[in-house]
Parts: sequence; C-alpha cells; structure tokens
Amino acid sequence: MLSRSTQFLQQLTTINSRRNLSFKQFNQIKPIINRNLAWFSGQSRKDTFGGKLKRRLKNFFVITVVGLGTYYGYRSYRRYRWFNDMSDSDKTSGTKPRVVVLGTGWSAVPLLKHIDTQKYEVVCVSPRNYFLMTPLLPSVSVGTVETRTVIESIRSLIGPRVKFIESHCINVDPKAKIITCISDGEQTVARGDNVKAVIAPSGRTDGASSRIIKDSARVRPEFQMKYDILVVAIGSENNTFNTPGVEEHAHFLKELLDARRIRSAISDAFESAMTPTQTVEERKRLLHFVIVGGGPTGVEFAAELADLVREDLQTYFPRLVANDVKITLIEALDHILSMMDKQISDYTERHFHRENIDVLMNTFVKEVKQREVIIQLKDSNELKSLPCSVVVWATGIKARSLTNKLREIIGLNIQSNRMGLLTDQYLRVKGIDDGSIFALGDCATIQTPKLVDRIQSLFEEADTEHRSALDLQQFRTLVEKKITEFPQLEIFSKSVEKAFTEADKEKSGYLTLAALRSTLEKADHKIRALPATAQVASQEGRYVADLLNQLTDTQLNHFEQQNLKPFRYKHMGSLAYVGGDEAVVDFTGSKPLLDIFKLKPMSGRSAAYLWKSFYLTEMFTGRTKTLLAFDWVRTHVFGRDISRY
Amino acid sequence: MLSRSTQFLQQLTTINSRRNLSFKQFNQIKPIINRNLAWFSGQSRKDTFGGKLKRRLKNFFVITVVGLGTYYGYRSYRRYRWFNDMSDSDKTSGTKPRVVVLGTGWSAVPLLKHIDTQKYEVVCVSPRNYFLMTPLLPSVSVGTVETRTVIESIRSLIGPRVKFIESHCINVDPKAKIITCISDGEQTVARGDNVKAVIAPSGRTDGASSRIIKDSARVRPEFQMKYDILVVAIGSENNTFNTPGVEEHAHFLKELLDARRIRSAISDAFESAMTPTQTVEERKRLLHFVIVGGGPTGVEFAAELADLVREDLQTYFPRLVANDVKITLIEALDHILSMMDKQISDYTERHFHRENIDVLMNTFVKEVKQREVIIQLKDSNELKSLPCSVVVWATGIKARSLTNKLREIIGLNIQSNRMGLLTDQYLRVKGIDDGSIFALGDCATIQTPKLVDRIQSLFEEADTEHRSALDLQQFRTLVEKKITEFPQLEIFSKSVEKAFTEADKEKSGYLTLAALRSTLEKADHKIRALPATAQVASQEGRYVADLLNQLTDTQLNHFEQQNLKPFRYKHMGSLAYVGGDEAVVDFTGSKPLLDIFKLKPMSGRSAAYLWKSFYLTEMFTGRTKTLLAFDWVRTHVFGRDISRY
Repeated sequence: MLSRSTQFLQQLTTINSRRNLSFKQFNQIKPIINRNLAWFSGQSRKDTFGGKLKRRLKNFFVITVVGLGTYYGYRSYRRYRWFNDMSDSDKTSGTKPRVVVLGTGWSAVPLLKHIDTQKYEVVCVSPRNYFLMTPLLPSVSVGTVETRTVIESIRSLIGPRVKFIESHCINVDPKAKIITCISDGEQTVARGDNVKAVIAPSGRTDGASSRIIKDSARVRPEFQMKYDILVVAIGSENNTFNTPGVEEHAHFLKELLDARRIRSAISDAFESAMTPTQTVEERKRLLHFVIVGGGPTGVEFAAELADLVREDLQTYFPRLVANDVKITLIEALDHILSMMDKQISDYTERHFHRENIDVLMNTFVKEVKQREVIIQLKDSNELKSLPCSVVVWATGIKARSLTNKLREIIGLNIQSNRMGLLTDQYLRVKGIDDGSIFALGDCATIQTPKLVDRIQSLFEEADTEHRSALDLQQFRTLVEKKITEFPQLEIFSKSVEKAFTEADKEKSGYLTLAALRSTLEKADHKIRALPATAQVASQEGRYVADLLNQLTDTQLNHFEQQNLKPFRYKHMGSLAYVGGDEAVVDFTGSKPLLDIFKLKPMSGRSAAYLWKSFYLTEMFTGRTKTLLAFDWVRTHVFGRDISRY
Repeated sequence: MLSRSTQFLQQLTTINSRRNLSFKQFNQIKPIINRNLAWFSGQSRKDTFGGKLKRRLKNFFVITVVGLGTYYGYRSYRRYRWFNDMSDSDKTSGTKPRVVVLGTGWSAVPLLKHIDTQKYEVVCVSPRNYFLMTPLLPSVSVGTVETRTVIESIRSLIGPRVKFIESHCINVDPKAKIITCISDGEQTVARGDNVKAVIAPSGRTDGASSRIIKDSARVRPEFQMKYDILVVAIGSENNTFNTPGVEEHAHFLKELLDARRIRSAISDAFESAMTPTQTVEERKRLLHFVIVGGGPTGVEFAAELADLVREDLQTYFPRLVANDVKITLIEALDHILSMMDKQISDYTERHFHRENIDVLMNTFVKEVKQREVIIQLKDSNELKSLPCSVVVWATGIKARSLTNKLREIIGLNIQSNRMGLLTDQYLRVKGIDDGSIFALGDCATIQTPKLVDRIQSLFEEADTEHRSALDLQQFRTLVEKKITEFPQLEIFSKSVEKAFTEADKEKSGYLTLAALRSTLEKADHKIRALPATAQVASQEGRYVADLLNQLTDTQLNHFEQQNLKPFRYKHMGSLAYVGGDEAVVDFTGSKPLLDIFKLKPMSGRSAAYLWKSFYLTEMFTGRTKTLLAFDWVRTHVFGRDISRY
C-alpha cells in the first residue's frame, strides 16, 4: 500500500513541478490517477477478474444463505403453526358452536378463510376436495393453462383449523339442525359393474384409456351431523333448458373434467380428420366447433379455441386449418356479452369477425344430436342443421337438487324462486325461523323487500306531524332511516332534493301518499338480482365470515338491533378474454372507481394485460400464482401441447 | 466538465503548495480525488443512484433486445424450416420407397428422428399421438411430476417430414405388403351407448366426473396402406399371468391414464378414511397400498408413494399417517431389483425397511379381489388375505394381439417365441423372405444362432489343413471371423489364448471337435435375450434408422455382403429411485465405462443426483426438460397437490 502510494506521489510530483497546473498538464495526470483508481477508491472497484469473481461468489453465497434461511425458516414456522392450529382445534372441539359449510367454491372458501375458528368449530362438507378457479376453465380446455394450475386442495387452502369431509350432503333437517351425508361410494362400485363392457379388449394398444377400475378406494358410510349454523354454498348446475340431447352430446364447461374432455375431443377431431379416406364433408363436420351461449364463458372459450387453432394447430395441420376449420358461436339474444357495455359487445363482435369466429345472433338451439346441432332463427319456423363435432354448452345455470329439496322442506310458498334459495339481506334463508341457515353464491338470491308493499306504514312513520304530506326534511329522514332495510333507496341518497322536486310535480313543497308511491316505485324498479358471478359469491362469503365473527352469543335473530350491516355488493367491473392477446374490461356499475377516475370500457391489448394481472393477483395461493405465470410463459415459448390422452 | 476539472485542479494545487508531498499531506488529497473519481474514471463508476439505475436499465434493455431478438429469430427460422420441410415432403411423396413405422414409443421415436426423409417417405401409424417418458410414470402417479411433463406430441417431436396417422393397425399382409388400419371410432361410439347408465343423475355435485360424452369427434374409416419397409415397434402389454381379478381391480402403470387413475385413487382412499363413522378395520384397509412386482417400476412406485405420504399426506392427515397407512411390496423372487447387483438389492431392502415399506419376498399373488389380495408364500399351501384398497400391478409384459397375429401369419414353427417376434441380428423379422419387416423394442426378440448347431461346418471351415484338429491360430481365426455372426464369441475375444488353453485339457496344442464343442457350448450359454427396457428399444430404433440410411437401392437382403454391421447392444447401466431423495445406480455389464473407471454400484443421495440429471438430459425436447426441472422445484417448494379430480 505504502509503496504504491509513494510511487504515485512521485509521479504526481514529477508532473506537477510548477505551482499551477494548466488543463492540458492536468490531463497528463489523469491516466496516472486512473491507473491507481482501484487503490484510491479503497474498494478495489476496477480489479482483476479473480477479484471480481470472488466478490460475486461472496455476494451469491450471502444471498443464497439468507434466501434459503428465510425460506426454510418460513417453512418451519408454517409447519409449526399448522400443527399448533391442529392441536388447538382438537382441544376445543365440541365446546364451541359448530358452523357447517357445504361447498368448496367461490363463496365457501373466503368464508372458511376468514371465519374465526377460536369462536366456532368449523366443518366443511363437499364432494369436491379442491377449490376451482372457474373463470380460467376456457384456458384449461385448450391447454393454455394446465389443470393443476387452476385448483388448490381445500386442505392446504384452509389449513387444519377447519375440518374437511369429502362427502355429499343429501338432506337437511332445519328443525333438528342435522344434515345427512352420503358419499357416492356405492354408486361408484355400481358404476364399475355397469361399465364392465368398457374394459378394453385385450390387444387394444390404447386399452388403458377405456379401462375402468372397480373403485376399491371409495367406500363411505352414511353419516349425520349436528350443526348450530349451516351455510349452504353448493353452487349451481348447468341449465340445458330441457333441450334434447344436451346431456348426452354436448360438453359443459363448469368442472375441471369438462375442460379435460374438451381438450381431448379437440385433439381427437383433428386426428380423425387426418385419417386417410376421410370424406371432405366428414372432415368439415369434424372440424366444426359449436359454442352455445354468448356469455363470458362461451366468448372466452371461443377466443381460446381460435388462439389454439391459429397459434398451434396451424403448424401441425396447415391444410386443415386453411380449408376446413370453423368455429361458430350461437347466442339467443341480439348481442354477445349482453350483460356488458354495448360498446364492448360491438367490439367483441368485430374482433370475432377478424378471428374467423362465426357469431349467430338471435338463434335458438332446438336439439343437439351426436353429429349435428339443430338451430332455429328468432321469428322463424325454419329449422336448420349444423353438422359439427364438439359442442360446448355454456348458457346458464339452474338450482341443484339439494337446493330444491331445501326449498320444499321450507315450503314453496316462501321459497318461491326456482333459481335458488331466497334469503334476507343478511343472507339468512327465508322461512328458517331461528336464522340458523345461510345461503350464498349461485344457489342463493337476496330478496329485497319492495317499498310500495309497505308504503302505508312508511308514510305514516315519516309523517311525524300528521298532516298527510311530507316535506323535504321528512322525506330526507325517511330515505336516511330506511336505506339499510331498503337498499334501493340508494338512487335518491345522492340528491334527495332533486328526487323531492321531481316527485313534487305541483311544486307545493309537500309529497302526498300518491306522489311518494310513484317515487318509491321508481326505486323498486331498480331492484336487480345479483348476477351469478364469482365476484358476488366471494363477497358474500367474506361478508358472512365477518358477520359471524361479530356476533355476540351466537344470537342469530335481531341483527338490526345488534347494529349489524346487511350485505351490500360492490361491483368492481367485469373482464373477458376475447382472443389474439386482447381482452375487454367493463367498469359500468363499479361505482367507487367510476366516481373518481371516470373509467371507460377498455378493449385490446392493454385490457389483456389488465386481465392477466387480475388473475395473477386473484389466484388464492403462491403455488397457483407461480404456476399460472409459468404456464403463460410456457405457452408463449413452447406452444400448447396437442397430445390426446 | 471543464469547470469541474478546473475546480479540482485548484483544490489540488492549494494542497500541493510545495514541490514534494509527504505521505500525510497526500492523504489530504485522497478524499478530493475520491470525490472526483467518477469524473476521473470517465465511466461514472461511483455515481449517483439515478446514474446507476440508468446504466442498469441500459444493460437490461440491451440484454432483453438481444435475447428476444435471438429467440424470435430462432422461432421464425424454425417455422420457416418447418414449412419448407413440409412442402419438400409433399413434392417428393410417392417417388420414394415408403417406410411405415407402427408405434410412437421408445424405439419408434429415435428411428423417426434419425431416418433420412430425403431417401424414404416415412409414415408413422399409432393409436397414441404422443411419446411417453415411461420411466417417470411412478413420479406422475403421485404428483411429483405432472402429466404433460412426461409426454411430447409426436407431431412436434418428428416435425412435418414424417406423416403421422393416429390409427390402430389390425392386420399385416407381408406378401402384398399392405397394412390394414382401423380406428376404434365405432367402438368408442358403441362405448358411449353402453355406458348410458353412467350419465350422472341430475343433482350430483360432482356429476361431471362420471359423465361420458358420446364421442362425436372420433369417426375414422378403415384404410389400407402399401409399404416397402414395415417397422413394427408396437411394444407390449401388461402380463397378468392369468391371475384372476387383476384386469378388474388392479391398476397397471404403463400408460399415462394409469398414473392419473392411481393418483386419484390414493387421494380417494385418504378422503374415504376421513369420513366419520368409518370403522378402524375399514380405515386400515383403505390406507393399505399393495404393489405387486419388485422390478424397477414397482420399486420406484413404492418409493414415490412413501415420499408422498411422508412429505405431503402427513401434513394433511397426521393421524392417519401415524396409525393406519401401510405400503406393501410383493415380489415372487427372493430379492427385489433382482436384475441389478446384489449389493443394490440389499441396500434397497434396508432402505425400504427404514421408509416403512413392507417387502414380502418369495410371495405369489393368487388373486386380486375388490378389497383384498390373496397371497401364497413359496413352498407353502396356505393362502393369506391382505385387505387393501389400491393395488398396483407391475410384474411383466406379454405380446400384443397384433404381434401374435403376425406370428401366426408367418407361422408359429418359425415364430416360436411367445414373448414376441423373433428377428435376426439386423432386427429383420424371421420368416419374411424379402426382409421387408423389422421388429424392435418390447415386441421383438433377437434370435442369436447357436454355435453348437453349426459345429460341424464351423470346424471344417476352420480346419484349413484337414488334420481334424485346430491349432491356436486356426481357433483365433475362427473367433475373429465369426464374431459378427455369433456375438456370443465375444467372451473369448479378450483372451483367445486363455480360452484355447482351457479347452485343450490334454495340453496337446490342438483342439478336437469334442473339445471345440464344449468350449463353444460355454459361449452359447452366454446368450441372453435383451431386457425389455427403454434403453434397448431406443438403441434398436437408432440402429435401424442408421441401417436404412446406409442401404443402397433398398436392397434388404445380403446385408452381410453390404458390409452392414449387425445390432449390438451397449448397456449403459441401470438406475432406480428408491425414495427419500435416494437412488441406486448399477453399472454392471456396462463394459465401456467399467473398463476405464471401474465404476461400482452407487446408492444414496449422490445416486439420486445422477438419476435426476440423467432424466433431465434424457428428456427429448427443451419443453419437457424445462417442465421437468420446474416440476421438481415446484414439488420441493409447494409440495404435491392432493386434489382429487
């Protein structure tokens, strides 16, 4: 060190022999200083390759040790927590009120995640032992995303604080507060017997694909279970609207196995079309894919299918794709995505036209046959046949049999809605006196009371001075006081004055009973059943968890007195992927955002980024987030796999 | 710049007011120079955060642009090549001899990849449109590796130079050189009808899982195809050794769907055991897993299952794993992995003991029932029942029906081997006069001619001086000349003198016919059928590709005269994963390596690394390699998914 500095000093001194250095002279020093920089800076910034490597290795080592330490520390901590929770929930079992949750879907999982297990013993019963990220099913059905990416085992999701039983609830006794569960174990065995003929004849090379094992691993006895609070979150079934042939010949897109079947069927269609001696008509039939239903599911599936064809199948089957492939989307209304903004429907229709997806609007499907679909145009008696192979049915939902059974038990006069269980605004099922049954998600409909039904009492209550007329102040009090019970009053809350002025046509400054009725009717008209979406379901699940956590003494009646707030849905907007790396986003109705940012409907590539980042953040666990990101990269780099198995 | 340098100069000059600087004085300069280092070095080495960020962003940008440029360039190039190849293969179709390859397995794929498509029109026919990495099936069956990781679409593997038809060859006419193919399209449709009862009753929440669509996407007409050269690489089937109940109740582990079924059945068993009111005996039965067959497949499956139980199921089902889970491996011989070194068998047995896997040696399975396995100990008449749920059958293979049909067509007097098609050492099927059919992989057995069968003519040919005895030189010439035709002579080739001395018991310096016969019998005893492994199959596939590429004028006879070498198998060693991050590797018999490195059998963690890196390099494409590496990391970080679907 010393010798080097001395040497540098000498060099410096030699050059700097005069007192003042000119700029030119100084430039002579520069290379010398430069050469000694490493020593100067004292950090060996510009050192040899060996030194660099050593430093990097050191950094790498430190980062690795810290990273792995953190990771394994976190793992051990999680494991410790897990076993702790487990023994906790064991110890206290039986001493707390028992909440039984039926279902593992969009509303059950947020509920299970947020409910206070210190306060309740929570049991989840469902025939499906995983949560399914349903909106990604169209991606799974063509291979953009893999099956295990969109599911998460319910046991790993909710941990050991909640007990899970994979079983099928078949009956509820609301009086005795008991549910009866039976697994389809015996059915499965019977199934094995029925399909004996399916066992592959020896010698079939792909024999495995049709061999069914008599399932010895599923034998589950019937059992009954007492509950204190029951939460029904069992979702819905596909609605075929009694169209003949749908059950037998059309694919649904609701469960994971549906997606797998569709993927296999698409591959099958292309391989079949490649068989020699296949006729042109048959080839065209095989490669005609029909989607029934222009809602988000149908649209996204059509989009993903078009992506698959253009990005992957075109490489493997260039002639077929050029000549024979056809995708048809059938919609009964006069627009696809009709629940979204008109602008978005139009955009999607134009986009589908570019993507070679035929959209048939105002068209009804009368029957699905094995190799054709019979359609009928609106206002026409003519039936038309579309020869096709894979038919995907994505039209609507209906109530499950347990939902209907429960409706009958309560009484169809109270439970008069065929779509599902009617609930009050706290999501308690109507007709259950002690309020011990909640229903949420697709199987439930909130019944909002109509203002006009109680107009007389409302008017009398508001008319504090008994002059058979309300002034502005009284009207304002009425709106503010009743808005919790009658959420439809919200349309007045922003500007009570304006509503009052409009109602008071004679400018008398007072509202008569008749004027109030016509105003409140306007509000009643705004009552809409919440859509059967994941967004609604998960908000309901979260709401019930918070509600139950707030309850004192498990007092299930008199919620109003306990100052508990009824459920309010906050719409955050809707998204749909429309193919070719484009998406549409509609913020209509998502009040909080609209007010601040004035968000307009979006479409195109930027919307696709929003769509992707939404699903990445929305995925429930680190595992599924990682897998989803990896799947997208994998699809981009390696394409989709077209193996049929 | 100028102002800053001037300022620095002034500072320097102020301090350096004398001609000579002391070391102490110089230290005063240091901080000033230091402060100005960034400017000095001219590279802004120690600059502000903004500058750093800018530089990093620049680097990142350059790397990204170069990387993406390379990637997309390569993609475009591949696409260009692909379409080029496609139009090439179109133009020349019909003008070249046609090679038809039956199968998409371990022997077909190397053949398809290396055969010269400039010289041959190549058509591949198989009912399975993907290549399956069979040795990883045990990993797939517990979820360590995902299904799509171990398969690669045959179309993406072999590209457009080879035509692929997904179909099922049911007949071969060796005289007319025509194959007949039929797809199981009609069977599938019939299957749909048979299983009508399976369609889920409305209301089952997991209805989808048993709903079977009447398959409209698979209708394939029968067709015939002429071939010039036929390569039979159709593999084998599971051999149940006529044990009753295996087809109905046991899982095989040969195709991808088997692995999926096993995974689902394991999950099912645990969920069933968690059902309330389940008896202890039934729970123990449900959690008893039986593996029949102690070969590599059985051992690896038992190991992976033990991993699954210890690493994942223990977290979710701690009580069941502690009390009820049992894994039993049944082997008919007195050792598991009996084809490997004794040392390895012993190690694996000890290791399995530590892993709580029960190994029953010398035990035969007499019958598989739905909920039990009937076993019998060797040298005992007593039958014993093992109550269990999932049974995995991994014992052996037998010929497929097409193999047997072809044997019958040729004549069972020539094709006398029930295990498969007998071939000569060029892998041409015996009994086909024009040599136009090759057989390789599991469906073929090379028939090595016995020396003793031709002892008379061999002796006479070698006895050039007609003295009814051979001297050392003549014996040496015999060995060297005939080693191509009789590969069993290889055991003498290293030391001909030693063999001669041993044979010449009377030390006369000559071998009589009798002495030669007893020596050659020793060589004949060394003839072993090649094992039915992926290693043998892929070497055979590669060999036939090279052979066909070398042929002049598609002259399929007189290979000896064309100086073509017969097939020689090079054993590279065997590996097996035994669980708990340990593996065993046996190099016995892998001559080239043994001779140089004297490699000993390996076991433990280092062997597991070898096992892993072997599969990473062995995977056929970049896609599967990436997925496999990702799957291993994913399993380590997030564990295995236990969802049942």
